[in-house]
Amino acid sequence: MTTTASSTALLRVINERAALEQIREHGPISRPELAKNTGLSKPTISLALADLERVGLVRTVGQRTGGAGRSAMLYEVSPEAGWVVGVDVGREWVRVALANIAGEVVTRRDVRSQARSAAALMDQIGELVAELAGGRELTHVVLATPGIHDHERRRLQLAPNIPGWQKPGVVDKLAERLPCAFTIENDIALAALGEQAYGLGRGLQNFTFVSIGTGLGMGVVLGGRLYRGSRGAAGEIGFLPLGGGPDHPGGQLESVLSGPGLVATAQRYGMKGRWTPETIYAAARQGDENALQIVGEEAANISRALASVIAVLDPELIVLGGGLGHTGADLLLEAVRDRLESMTPLPPPPVELSALEGEAIVRGAVATALGIARDALFSRAVAEPVGAV
Amino acid sequence: MTTTASSTALLRVINERAALEQIREHGPISRPELAKNTGLSKPTISLALADLERVGLVRTVGQRTGGAGRSAMLYEVSPEAGWVVGVDVGREWVRVALANIAGEVVTRRDVRSQARSAAALMDQIGELVAELAGGRELTHVVLATPGIHDHERRRLQLAPNIPGWQKPGVVDKLAERLPCAFTIENDIALAALGEQAYGLGRGLQNFTFVSIGTGLGMGVVLGGRLYRGSRGAAGEIGFLPLGGGPDHPGGQLESVLSGPGLVATAQRYGMKGRWTPETIYAAARQGDENALQIVGEEAANISRALASVIAVLDPELIVLGGGLGHTGADLLLEAVRDRLESMTPLPPPPVELSALEGEAIVRGAVATALGIARDALFSRAVAEPVGAV
Repeated sequence: MTTTASSTALLRVINERAALEQIREHGPISRPELAKNTGLSKPTISLALADLERVGLVRTVGQRTGGAGRSAMLYEVSPEAGWVVGVDVGREWVRVALANIAGEVVTRRDVRSQARSAAALMDQIGELVAELAGGRELTHVVLATPGIHDHERRRLQLAPNIPGWQKPGVVDKLAERLPCAFTIENDIALAALGEQAYGLGRGLQNFTFVSIGTGLGMGVVLGGRLYRGSRGAAGEIGFLPLGGGPDHPGGQLESVLSGPGLVATAQRYGMKGRWTPETIYAAARQGDENALQIVGEEAANISRALASVIAVLDPELIVLGGGLGHTGADLLLEAVRDRLESMTPLPPPPVELSALEGEAIVRGAVATALGIARDALFSRAVAEPVGAV
Repeated sequence: MTTTASSTALLRVINERAALEQIREHGPISRPELAKNTGLSKPTISLALADLERVGLVRTVGQRTGGAGRSAMLYEVSPEAGWVVGVDVGREWVRVALANIAGEVVTRRDVRSQARSAAALMDQIGELVAELAGGRELTHVVLATPGIHDHERRRLQLAPNIPGWQKPGVVDKLAERLPCAFTIENDIALAALGEQAYGLGRGLQNFTFVSIGTGLGMGVVLGGRLYRGSRGAAGEIGFLPLGGGPDHPGGQLESVLSGPGLVATAQRYGMKGRWTPETIYAAARQGDENALQIVGEEAANISRALASVIAVLDPELIVLGGGLGHTGADLLLEAVRDRLESMTPLPPPPVELSALEGEAIVRGAVATALGIARDALFSRAVAEPVGAV
């Protein structure tokens, strides 16, 4: 049978890719194991390994001895073949992590955001990335921010919490301050990917990460991949028409559920003084009637939000995160689960608290940067001419 | 470079599949056009065509002459290489369609449902399918029904409107009455696929079909494919916590929105006599105050449902269908669009009335059956040994 030149080249790429994935997931691994796991012939594996070693993506790490057979050379991904940085750009904190291409986070820092202006924040991001890289060549950077990135207009949208962040030019100015290709992604979407890579979402096809903090948001993983919607606005559950109180049916959920919404409810209940979500929860724990009422409303609002998500998406799991979810989890979680039982047609999916705390977003940024960097390094590698074997 | 035997066989399948898809979409088509469209070499195309002709999936249909070059033989899919039936099993009507593998519907019938018992309905379905087939060998049948098919337990769920339909054994008894492999799929999900194949959803990646009729439901197409959720319960928007009226915030939407919900609202408004959705809409058109009020509530409820869907999914388009949507569309559609403008963070996606009327479900069943049948016929064909070329 005739195979065209392009088909042969395509096959080579597919084979090397399959070998590399196996090495990444199961390395250190031997040539016979690779052949067995991929279903490829030993000569094909040898060729793939030679290519991958030549471009520096894979290295040998000694031999496995013992057993009756010959000792086998073991292969693993070269951890220093590439580097990525993940940045969680929040209004309060900027969290950064440097990871090698094998996925090990080697440096991790949290600093207070310079969010008083977009320019100061961009400088800060650029300096932090340079500092973390420390002279290493970065392959990719992922920035997690509130809002959505409108790629066509090269602008950020729906990110009013960071001053100046939605102005034209911000994306281009970030490009000037970063040393390599970068991607801007919604922070809550990345938290969902953080859960998928390192948290409760491992191995799941369809789940969501619901963040209840200064704002409300949801990251959606469907079919094992991030679902963004047609304009990147999927999961904007702050806009569910569940808020506004009895006088305003159809008001937006974010007006009652989220840090500021909770404090507004306290004022509606006539609670005097300065309240924060934390002090409201503390009062409820001590039996304060008003505070308990407010926490009850909060649980009802969260339940309605989750029931809406379940009605539309039927997910396998809902992970709760964000500051508020954690602060009040002892008061809210069981109440929410109980309410959901009577609100959904089938038994509700598990609702669990994220185990990653404030780390979900920066972890998701690293995981996403790793995925992109691996593709980029691999594409660069296979673009080089094949050596004689 | 070495290619393994299995890789070569895989390539052959990929190439023949690509050729067949091109012929199906663009046939009658010539060999040079096929080579150009697929990027495959002419010898590879010739081999693929020989295989596809040999197993009867493709046939020649004369030659294209004219121009300076040689006249070229044209190929098309053999329409009678396979047959499928789509069945829309409703409480009122059973709609059936027979189509050939080229996708032409050759017979179409609507009959009153024998829905007084599951046994009678199953007999009716079996007889209708046999009648439509008329001795032709069917490759696949798709049954559209309310509810969801729990594959593991081989049972239907969430289909209370058809008596006996949820009992154990129904799926197995259907198998006895049907002459070939079959698939049971949710009717509203199939309506979405009908819109994708023949209606407003053509070429779209992410859209939903919202059905407002005797019940409420939504079919979800994401990334160009039907999204079912983890238990097949995605799109069960009747369970959105938007109903129940002011006394029952968080009640289920289906209790107020849908045919029976609308009639219940009329009773709540103290409207005397027997009302149906149709007569309520007619009264509103004549300026009846109560009826106008009810229609206003209906529009508000639909808007809230769609705002919820938009917040979670950010679709490109929402198609409205189902009996109620059509009956009251002149009163509802503009009101819903206006309300949505103030309820969504970004401009709302287009909300359009289905152009397929009651046909969307049976069309979706046919489209789905065609997809499965094409895979089955193709797999059977490539499983046969390669002839000498």
